[in-house]
Amino acid sequence: MKYLIKKTSFTFLSLILALNIYSQSELSRITVQENNFVTEEGKTIIFRGLNTSDPDKLESQKHWNKAYFQEIKNWGGNLVRFPVHPTAWVKRGKENYLKLLDDGIKWAAELGMYVIIDWHSIGNLRTEMYQHDMYDTTKKQTFDFWRTIASKYGDNSTVAFYELFNEPTTFNNQLGTITWQQWKELNEEMITIIRANGGKGIPLVAGFNWAYDLTPVKENPVNATGIAYVSHPYPQKREKPWEEKWTDDWGFIKEKYPLILTEIGFCGPEDPGAHIPVISDESYGDSITSYCDHKEISYMVWVFDPQWAPRLFEDWNFTPSRHGKYFKKKLKSYKY
Amino acid sequence: MKYLIKKTSFTFLSLILALNIYSQSELSRITVQENNFVTEEGKTIIFRGLNTSDPDKLESQKHWNKAYFQEIKNWGGNLVRFPVHPTAWVKRGKENYLKLLDDGIKWAAELGMYVIIDWHSIGNLRTEMYQHDMYDTTKKQTFDFWRTIASKYGDNSTVAFYELFNEPTTFNNQLGTITWQQWKELNEEMITIIRANGGKGIPLVAGFNWAYDLTPVKENPVNATGIAYVSHPYPQKREKPWEEKWTDDWGFIKEKYPLILTEIGFCGPEDPGAHIPVISDESYGDSITSYCDHKEISYMVWVFDPQWAPRLFEDWNFTPSRHGKYFKKKLKSYKY
Amino acid sequence: MKYLIKKTSFTFLSLILALNIYSQSELSRITVQENNFVTEEGKTIIFRGLNTSDPDKLESQKHWNKAYFQEIKNWGGNLVRFPVHPTAWVKRGKENYLKLLDDGIKWAAELGMYVIIDWHSIGNLRTEMYQHDMYDTTKKQTFDFWRTIASKYGDNSTVAFYELFNEPTTFNNQLGTITWQQWKELNEEMITIIRANGGKGIPLVAGFNWAYDLTPVKENPVNATGIAYVSHPYPQKREKPWEEKWTDDWGFIKEKYPLILTEIGFCGPEDPGAHIPVISDESYGDSITSYCDHKEISYMVWVFDPQWAPRLFEDWNFTPSRHGKYFKKKLKSYKY
Ligand SMILES: [Mg+2]
Ligand SMILES: [Mg+2]
Ligand SMILES: [Mg+2]
Ligand SMILES: [Mg+2]
Ligand SMILES: [Mg+2]
Repeated sequence: MKYLIKKTSFTFLSLILALNIYSQSELSRITVQENNFVTEEGKTIIFRGLNTSDPDKLESQKHWNKAYFQEIKNWGGNLVRFPVHPTAWVKRGKENYLKLLDDGIKWAAELGMYVIIDWHSIGNLRTEMYQHDMYDTTKKQTFDFWRTIASKYGDNSTVAFYELFNEPTTFNNQLGTITWQQWKELNEEMITIIRANGGKGIPLVAGFNWAYDLTPVKENPVNATGIAYVSHPYPQKREKPWEEKWTDDWGFIKEKYPLILTEIGFCGPEDPGAHIPVISDESYGDSITSYCDHKEISYMVWVFDPQWAPRLFEDWNFTPSRHGKYFKKKLKSYKY
Repeated sequence: MKYLIKKTSFTFLSLILALNIYSQSELSRITVQENNFVTEEGKTIIFRGLNTSDPDKLESQKHWNKAYFQEIKNWGGNLVRFPVHPTAWVKRGKENYLKLLDDGIKWAAELGMYVIIDWHSIGNLRTEMYQHDMYDTTKKQTFDFWRTIASKYGDNSTVAFYELFNEPTTFNNQLGTITWQQWKELNEEMITIIRANGGKGIPLVAGFNWAYDLTPVKENPVNATGIAYVSHPYPQKREKPWEEKWTDDWGFIKEKYPLILTEIGFCGPEDPGAHIPVISDESYGDSITSYCDHKEISYMVWVFDPQWAPRLFEDWNFTPSRHGKYFKKKLKSYKY
Repeated sequence: MKYLIKKTSFTFLSLILALNIYSQSELSRITVQENNFVTEEGKTIIFRGLNTSDPDKLESQKHWNKAYFQEIKNWGGNLVRFPVHPTAWVKRGKENYLKLLDDGIKWAAELGMYVIIDWHSIGNLRTEMYQHDMYDTTKKQTFDFWRTIASKYGDNSTVAFYELFNEPTTFNNQLGTITWQQWKELNEEMITIIRANGGKGIPLVAGFNWAYDLTPVKENPVNATGIAYVSHPYPQKREKPWEEKWTDDWGFIKEKYPLILTEIGFCGPEDPGAHIPVISDESYGDSITSYCDHKEISYMVWVFDPQWAPRLFEDWNFTPSRHGKYFKKKLKSYKY
C-alpha cells in the first residue's frame, strides 16, 4: 500500500502546515451570512481594496515587499488581490511561488488587510483554450492549484477569498464552447476540492464575458452555500447610463448573495495601455462607487503597478495616475 | 485586466495578419452550394490534385520549393493537400511550421492551385490514442491548431479547405472507444472554433475506419452548413466489384453534400512500401476515377514523394512510378 | 496513408512480439469460470503469493534477480504482483521498464509462479488527482500503459492478471469527485482496450476507499465477462470482529465472481513504517486467512521488501519480520 519514505514525509508536511496555521491566523475569520460578509463578531464588512500585479512580476522587480503593502494600506484598502498567472506559477515552481504568497499574506495580515488569491487565467477551462499563452492551464492543474492553496492556507483567516478563475470567456467562441451548466459544474468541483482540503475561505465564482455577466445565476445558481459572486464591470462593457444595465447583468445578485467587483478601473484614451473595455473618465468612477456604496457591494481597483493598465501610479514613488488620484481619494474617504 | 505588453503585441499581430491577407488573396473564394463546390463567379468546380508529403519532411530534404509545386501543376492538379503531422508541428514549433505553410500557400496560389491543410493524425481523438507515436496529439492541441490556422489563413482564399482530422479510427478498439455522436460533437467543436476565428474555408469531415466509412452521416449528419465530407477509399477497403459498395459506404453522400476523396492511390505488391489496403492495379484507377467523374466527386492522389507509399514518382527527377504514370496521364486529361 | 518506414517497423515489431510469445508461454492459461479461477485442464486454482516492491526500485538496488524470485517461491507463493508506479514507468522509459518486466515474468514462469501486473496509482483517475506526486498519471497514459502491456504480454500465460488501477480513492473528496458509474466506465474502457490489443489475461477491478469497498458492484457490476474483483482489507479498515463487515463490504462478491485480495498484511505499532490502516497483530492474520480459506478467496501479502511497510523481511538475507514469520509459515502450509 504505502511505504516508509512516503508516510514519513506526509507526517512532516502536516507538522509544517500546522505550524504555519497558528502563527498567521490573526484576523477575524470572514464568513457569508445571507447576502453579506461578516466577521466572527457578527459585524458586516464591506471590502474595498487594490489589485497587485502578479507577485512573481513584483518580486522579479524587487517590489514584493512590506513597503508596497504599506502603500496599499495608505491608499485605504482593507483587501488586496493577488493575480496568480498559471504560467508564473509553473515558471517559478510551486514551492517558490508559495514563498511569495507566504510573504504577501504575512504583510497583509500585519497591516490588517485581507487577501484574495486569484487564479488569473482568461478563457475556457473546458476546452483548455485561452486568450493568450500566459493564461494557459488545464483542469488538472487548476484543481491541483486549489488543492495546494486550500491545504496550505485553509486555516489562515487572512486568506479570506479564493477566486476560482479570473475571467471565464469563450471570446465569442474563438476558444470553443462551454455552457453555463458545464461552467457551474467545474466551479462546484473546485469548491468541493477546496473544502475537502480544509479551505475555510470563501470561494468566489465568476460568469462569462470576461467575468462580467452573472445573469445565468438567476435560473441556475452554483450549488454550494457560503460562496460569493464576482463581476468585472469595466466602463465599456455597457453604454451610459449604466445603472439599470448593471442591475440586470450582475447587480441583482446582491439581493441574495454577497458580491465583490474584483476588478474595476478606468483610464483616459491617452493613458498608457488604454484598451477596450477600460477607457472612460471620472464619471465612471462616480457611477460605479455610488452604485456599490448604495447596495453595499465590495470592490477592488485594478491595478497597483506602473506598467500594467489601467495603472494606479506612475513611478515607484507611487505618484498617483489620474485613475489613481480618483480612487486614492475615494478609498481614503471610507470610515469603516 | 490586460496589461501593456500584451495589448501591444496583440495589435501588432493583427497588423501582420491584415498584411498577409491582402497580399495573398488572389484565387476566387470557394464555397458550398448544395452538393457542389462553387467559385465566387458561381461556377461549379471539381478538384483533382496531389498530396504532398509532410512539408517538414520536404523542407528538411530541400524539396519544399516552387519547383516541387510547379511539377504538381504540370501533372494536372488544381488542388494540393498538406498533411501536417502533429509531431512535426511540435518538433519544428508553431512559428517555424507556419513559415513553411506560408511558402507553400504562396507557391500554390501563384500557380493557380488551391490548398487543403490536413491535421494528419490517425486514431481516436476522444481517448487520445493513436496508431503510432508520430500521430500523437490531444484535443487541446488539435483545437489550438485550428484556432491558429483559422486566425492566420481565414481570409486567404487559396486555403480553400481545412481537413479536421485525417483518419479517425479506433483500430478495432485497440485505441479505445468513440461513438459517432462523440466524433460528430468533436467535429462541431472544431468547426465552431474555426469560424469564430475567422476561418472562411470549408471544413472537411471524415468518418471512422481510417476515413473510409460515412454511413452514420445518413442518420446523424454533422450539425453545420457549408461543410464537405471526405473518404479514403483505398482499393483493399472492399472487394471488387467496388461500385455498389462505394455508393453504400460513402458515395451516397454526394447526393446531398460535396465530397472529396482526399486520399486514393494504389501500388503493385512488388512496389516499395506496398501494404494493406493500397495493393491493386490500374483497374482500381479506372474504377475510382470513372466513379468520381460520373458523380462529379473531387479526388486527391497519395503521395507526391519518392519515399512514402504508394509513391507517385521514383526519384527527384520526378520520374513517374507505375502509379504515377497512371494518374499523371489521367489528371492531365481533364479540361476544366 | 502510411509510409515506408512506418510499415517496416510495424512488421518488425510484430515479429519480435511473436517470438516473445512462444518462448514464454509455459504455464497453463488461467480463465474465469463462474466465481473461480481455473486452469486449461479445468482445475480450480486458488492463489496466494507476495507483492514485490516496484521492479524499478529493486533493479536500482541490484535485487531484481532470480534469487529474489526463488525466495518468493521458497516462502510458498504461486502468484507474484508487480506494482508499477506511473512515475517509475516514466522515469525509466517504456522500453527499459518493459525489459524489467520481461525478466521478472521469465523468472516467475521458470519457478511456476503466475504474475499480476498492477498499475500502481492511488487516487482519482477522473480528475487526475493523486494521493502523492509519485502516483501521478493521466487517463491517456493509463490507457496507453494497458495497450502496451496487452500487446506485449497478451499471449503470455504467465501474466495471468492485469490489475487496472491499484487504489481508487477520492481521499474524502480531497482529490475531487467520481461516481461509481464514472469509475465503472473507465474500467470498461480499459478492459476493451486490453482485449482489443490481444490481452488474454484476467482484468482485476478495484472499488473506492483505497480498493476496499466493493458494495456498488451489487447493484451495478462492471459490464464485462471474464473479470475478477479486488479488495485490500487491511486490518484497520474496520473494527474487530471483522468477518460480517468483510462479507458486507467485499466478501459477498465471491458468491458470484472470483475475488483476489491483492494486498493484505499487518505490522505492530513499533515496526518501521507502521501507519494506519495496517497496524494490528497475528489475530488479523488468523482472521483474514481463515476467512479466505473458507470461501476460497485468493490473497497476496504486502510487501517483499525490507524498506517498504509492512515489510516481510528485515535484511537482504531475507530474515523474516514478525509479519513475515506469520505469512511464511502460513503460505508454506498450503498443499495445492
Ligand atoms: Mg464568453
Ligand atoms: Mg483581468
Ligand atoms: Mg474505426
Ligand atoms: Mg493517410
Ligand atoms: Mg474513496
